[in-house]
Amino acid sequence: MVPADRDLGGADLANIVNEAALLAVRRNKEKVGMAEFEEAVERVVAGLEKKNQLMNPEERKIVAYHEMGHAIVAHTSPGTDPVKKISIIPRGIAALGYSLQVLTEDRFLMKKTELLNKIATLLGGRVAEEIVFEDISTGAHNDLARATDIARSMVKEYGMSERLGKVYFSREKRQQFLLMAPEGAQEYSESTAEIIDDEVKQIIDEQYERARRLLLNNREVLEKGAKKLLVEEKLETEELEALMASVRHGPEDA
Amino acid sequence: MVPADRDLGGADLANIVNEAALLAVRRNKEKVGMAEFEEAVERVVAGLEKKNQLMNPEERKIVAYHEMGHAIVAHTSPGTDPVKKISIIPRGIAALGYSLQVLTEDRFLMKKTELLNKIATLLGGRVAEEIVFEDISTGAHNDLARATDIARSMVKEYGMSERLGKVYFSREKRQQFLLMAPEGAQEYSESTAEIIDDEVKQIIDEQYERARRLLLNNREVLEKGAKKLLVEEKLETEELEALMASVRHGPEDA
Amino acid sequence: MVPADRDLGGADLANIVNEAALLAVRRNKEKVGMAEFEEAVERVVAGLEKKNQLMNPEERKIVAYHEMGHAIVAHTSPGTDPVKKISIIPRGIAALGYSLQVLTEDRFLMKKTELLNKIATLLGGRVAEEIVFEDISTGAHNDLARATDIARSMVKEYGMSERLGKVYFSREKRQQFLLMAPEGAQEYSESTAEIIDDEVKQIIDEQYERARRLLLNNREVLEKGAKKLLVEEKLETEELEALMASVRHGPEDA
Amino acid sequence: MVPADRDLGGADLANIVNEAALLAVRRNKEKVGMAEFEEAVERVVAGLEKKNQLMNPEERKIVAYHEMGHAIVAHTSPGTDPVKKISIIPRGIAALGYSLQVLTEDRFLMKKTELLNKIATLLGGRVAEEIVFEDISTGAHNDLARATDIARSMVKEYGMSERLGKVYFSREKRQQFLLMAPEGAQEYSESTAEIIDDEVKQIIDEQYERARRLLLNNREVLEKGAKKLLVEEKLETEELEALMASVRHGPEDA
Amino acid sequence: MVPADRDLGGADLANIVNEAALLAVRRNKEKVGMAEFEEAVERVVAGLEKKNQLMNPEERKIVAYHEMGHAIVAHTSPGTDPVKKISIIPRGIAALGYSLQVLTEDRFLMKKTELLNKIATLLGGRVAEEIVFEDISTGAHNDLARATDIARSMVKEYGMSERLGKVYFSREKRQQFLLMAPEGAQEYSESTAEIIDDEVKQIIDEQYERARRLLLNNREVLEKGAKKLLVEEKLETEELEALMASVRHGPEDA
Amino acid sequence: MVPADRDLGGADLANIVNEAALLAVRRNKEKVGMAEFEEAVERVVAGLEKKNQLMNPEERKIVAYHEMGHAIVAHTSPGTDPVKKISIIPRGIAALGYSLQVLTEDRFLMKKTELLNKIATLLGGRVAEEIVFEDISTGAHNDLARATDIARSMVKEYGMSERLGKVYFSREKRQQFLLMAPEGAQEYSESTAEIIDDEVKQIIDEQYERARRLLLNNREVLEKGAKKLLVEEKLETEELEALMASVRHGPEDA
Repeated sequence: MVPADRDLGGADLANIVNEAALLAVRRNKEKVGMAEFEEAVERVVAGLEKKNQLMNPEERKIVAYHEMGHAIVAHTSPGTDPVKKISIIPRGIAALGYSLQVLTEDRFLMKKTELLNKIATLLGGRVAEEIVFEDISTGAHNDLARATDIARSMVKEYGMSERLGKVYFSREKRQQFLLMAPEGAQEYSESTAEIIDDEVKQIIDEQYERARRLLLNNREVLEKGAKKLLVEEKLETEELEALMASVRHGPEDA
Repeated sequence: MVPADRDLGGADLANIVNEAALLAVRRNKEKVGMAEFEEAVERVVAGLEKKNQLMNPEERKIVAYHEMGHAIVAHTSPGTDPVKKISIIPRGIAALGYSLQVLTEDRFLMKKTELLNKIATLLGGRVAEEIVFEDISTGAHNDLARATDIARSMVKEYGMSERLGKVYFSREKRQQFLLMAPEGAQEYSESTAEIIDDEVKQIIDEQYERARRLLLNNREVLEKGAKKLLVEEKLETEELEALMASVRHGPEDA
Repeated sequence: MVPADRDLGGADLANIVNEAALLAVRRNKEKVGMAEFEEAVERVVAGLEKKNQLMNPEERKIVAYHEMGHAIVAHTSPGTDPVKKISIIPRGIAALGYSLQVLTEDRFLMKKTELLNKIATLLGGRVAEEIVFEDISTGAHNDLARATDIARSMVKEYGMSERLGKVYFSREKRQQFLLMAPEGAQEYSESTAEIIDDEVKQIIDEQYERARRLLLNNREVLEKGAKKLLVEEKLETEELEALMASVRHGPEDA
Repeated sequence: MVPADRDLGGADLANIVNEAALLAVRRNKEKVGMAEFEEAVERVVAGLEKKNQLMNPEERKIVAYHEMGHAIVAHTSPGTDPVKKISIIPRGIAALGYSLQVLTEDRFLMKKTELLNKIATLLGGRVAEEIVFEDISTGAHNDLARATDIARSMVKEYGMSERLGKVYFSREKRQQFLLMAPEGAQEYSESTAEIIDDEVKQIIDEQYERARRLLLNNREVLEKGAKKLLVEEKLETEELEALMASVRHGPEDA
Repeated sequence: MVPADRDLGGADLANIVNEAALLAVRRNKEKVGMAEFEEAVERVVAGLEKKNQLMNPEERKIVAYHEMGHAIVAHTSPGTDPVKKISIIPRGIAALGYSLQVLTEDRFLMKKTELLNKIATLLGGRVAEEIVFEDISTGAHNDLARATDIARSMVKEYGMSERLGKVYFSREKRQQFLLMAPEGAQEYSESTAEIIDDEVKQIIDEQYERARRLLLNNREVLEKGAKKLLVEEKLETEELEALMASVRHGPEDA
Repeated sequence: MVPADRDLGGADLANIVNEAALLAVRRNKEKVGMAEFEEAVERVVAGLEKKNQLMNPEERKIVAYHEMGHAIVAHTSPGTDPVKKISIIPRGIAALGYSLQVLTEDRFLMKKTELLNKIATLLGGRVAEEIVFEDISTGAHNDLARATDIARSMVKEYGMSERLGKVYFSREKRQQFLLMAPEGAQEYSESTAEIIDDEVKQIIDEQYERARRLLLNNREVLEKGAKKLLVEEKLETEELEALMASVRHGPEDA
């Protein structure tokens, strides 16, 4: 779970540049100098630090259920590596909580089922919020971005959509280092763009629904785990294994 | 309430650059030098300073009702932090008046209801103008921009629209610092763009209507507060609390 | 009234750059040097100076009626500051004639009615041409640009269109100084773009029609003022006040 | 009449740049140096010079009728300045022939009728080719570009189209010197773009048809003038006046 | 077979640039220096190296069948050069396995049938996965990109589509070195873009189906070859010739 | 006839730049230096040289018929300059074979019929392949590009399409040297873009069909000439004249 306004690589850096430019202008300087740049960094970083304090109790609760949601869906997805550790102690500006999976990233290949499981696991946090609380939060925005990225790649690069066939639709990706005018930002028709949108949405919708059924089916584990997390702040491998022992894999994934 | 032509970060700086270029050309100079740049800054800043005088009585009246509108909607939105101070003394070039809320910005997470309340609060200023005066003003343009930004994020980044589902639609945001040709300015189809527009408009419309009902329901507080503001120029926490004590939360948010 | 080819900030400067580049190439130079730049400026400026002579009698007549058109519409628009001075002596390359209004630009806020009046006043010059002469001229092109800008802002930034609601549609404006790939040149759908076009056109059409009725209703003042202008070349405050005393505000704005 | 491949400002310069880059690569140089640039200029210029020889008899004939076409339409358009000189001696790389009009460019204002006459005059060359020869040539391409530019400005900048009204559609023009991401390359909807295309085409079609009727009505003067031109290579004011004395202005412009 | 996240030319390099920029900002440096660049390279390369270990048994199995798929389709495509060597030993970051064909790349011309065979051969890997395993993997993504590129060139550059005729649709390709604003990213209409998409999809679909029939018809060779590969890790020319001797070319290509 | 992957001006140079960038990164260098650039050039050029060997017999046969196709269509197009020399000896990386026409490029004007003849001549090579061989090759791709360029200019710049009229549609062409944001990459509506596509396709289709009828009508000359070319490798003016003497101009161009 990543806070909604923590994209340091994007907006924050843009702010720094902009802030420095503004400072330079206010000082009637012709160029943005070292001084302005430093001051701009301080201002923006200070703004970030101010935010970097303890979460309030309600937020901690949301984060706890959110992270347990990820863990249970991961656990019930056959072939998905189990979560080894969960924490709700914020780590720097990067994350409010996290579920440590033995990452699939040192894998050479990903199978379609694995990609779908990964999407369901990413959506599991939001699903947990929706089930437990009356309200949903902004905390899932990074999960949604990653789940969407995977779904888009399945559809545009891995040939995993029936409707679109084995055609590859991300040609521009390979050209982005060339530093020249791209051959065409989007090399497919509007009607193809619509099918891509439909296919991506369908993948996300199906996995969201699957994650929802899984968590509804395991409401007690979700509650028990979240409550434990709120007390202990993190759960290590053995505690998690004990918790997950009572998970019902349900009709969806038998 | 921010004046309509005060985007120092945008148009003003562009004017400075342009002004300097024009000066350089008029002087047959090959490059825009320090001299031109300074003169351009002076011209533009002077243009701004000229504007930075006292508001006329009618403007003060609009600002007073506008700021009270923000405050009352904030007060009647459960879970929204109350406004602690209102002022109608212009602050530099940045604002004509302001309502100081204990900002939600040091929050880690925002819930959907909170985002909707924030939108309604932002729209409250314009609603007050519409209720009290025959005419509406340009003073809400910054409020509208911020309310629209929140609504767009709800729909495109936080998965808070039923019709669009949990798909994330702002992929480019994370790439804007890369300084390279974007992978596609808009990575969704025209038909998706239309749904996004519809969803954003619906959120804004609903919150505007809710703010309107709330303020109509509390017309006396609005009048009393605005009149007090016009006399005293600012209202501190205690005065505001006294004022708000008689606010009716009405059927909309009970 | 600004001549059609006097956008010094745009086309002229582009011409200078282009002219210099062409000179450099013709001289087999690798770079555009000081010499080429100076010569280019001279050529372009000379081209402009050549044009900067006396208008012919027919042009003077068009300008006189055009400026009177602005003045009468401004006078008959309640709440609009009256025109203090009119001149048909060309001022440098910037204008053929002008009507000096106590500008609304040191105002903090603009009301919707004021914006509409401003649009009608801008269109008044062209309306006068259409009423008086069989033919219309290019002289209104800058007025049309400014009127369109105001109408677009009303619709896209100030939430003053019923159909589009309180949504803000100019997000990119705030980002134009960032010097990075814009997040999307146009962040709304084609169908929204169509509504924006319709709304802008309707505002312009209505104010044009209003200005037309006002000037038809005050044809004698228009004639009298224009003839006086052709003789005296400028009209100061007192002369204008005397002239405007007989203006009929008519059914449209009573 | 300008030859079809003589856009020195555009394609030729691009060729020079490209040629120089190619040379640098072939020589394993890291940068395009002075040497490559000079050689590239020579190659491209040589290519142009080769073309800059005498026209063949058939081409001369086409040019003669083409230029006479311009002259007669200009003569029969009331309010248009008469052509003072016609020549079919190629001038450098810029033109194959020309008709010297007392230019309207030192005018402050252009009336709608004058713009239409200018378009008709520009199209007159092509009309003459179509009437006299079985075949049409590429020689009119620059005339078409200029006529289209005028028609587009009438429709997009001068408010001279009934269907589009007094709206201004070239906002970007004023921003092209800002050297920043444009606010939107095209700030109007596709449906507006279609109307603009229709209106421009209609203006061009009507003036083409008018020029055609005028020249058909004055076929003898066209023949007589062209034949004279082919013998004498240029016609000065007096010769032209004598020729034009017998022009019939016809029903179209009486 | 190339792993899905190994586009060193694109994403990885972008990561390095981005990483270096982030480091510079964190160190309050005004510019990205040598130090940051080196550290960024190390980080990204380290991330890659971590991945560059042995494949797990299931992955090796997928790769073996995938590569045999390529080889058999190549063998059964008349006129296609036979595969000379197959390996499932990962080579650096570039490939998981490979089938060494005597490349057609030192050919001057390619015939339509050869291009279609090349597409079928590229798709053969994915087809093999689909036939043998319940699940498909990301391993074909580079094959799909290359097959799509060939199909697009057939349709847009080689005039090999009945519906599109002999028109050439990739004009921008020749201009991409010019380093200037492209004349139009896409110089054809949306309706043409749709036909292009359809034609490309049809080519890919047909060759996929052909490859599928071929491999179904040669299931035993596929199994035998893949098993041998899993034991011996590579197959040289003679072993391959022996294997392929029993391939049935089937009704599809007789 | 130009091989399909020989666009040195475009893709190859892009490859060199990219290759150099990759080398620099692999060597942990901050900048692409001379060394990397040289090595990159060598790699790419070596890749090209490898290809630059003798054509195989089948390729030579295709080239021979292809070049004869150009020559016969040129010969039978009235007003087109005859081919003076044909060769099937590859010339560097630029061409596999060529037909030397006395070029029309030192012409000042091109007539519509001449442009159509030029298109038919360009398409003649591909037509010959289609008539003689069961299969078509990539060898015509450059011919198609040039024929399409001419057809597009006829339609967009020379006013030679009935449906589009005398409107000029390539405004951006004149602005490409300005090095600034173009005023609009495509200044016409989607519906106009569709008509342009249709008109271009119709021109190409008609000339392709005409070339086909001409070559079918002269099959013997085609065979005789191609066979002679395969033996002698080139045909000079006199041999060609003898060959062409028996060409039948057929009903199409009588």
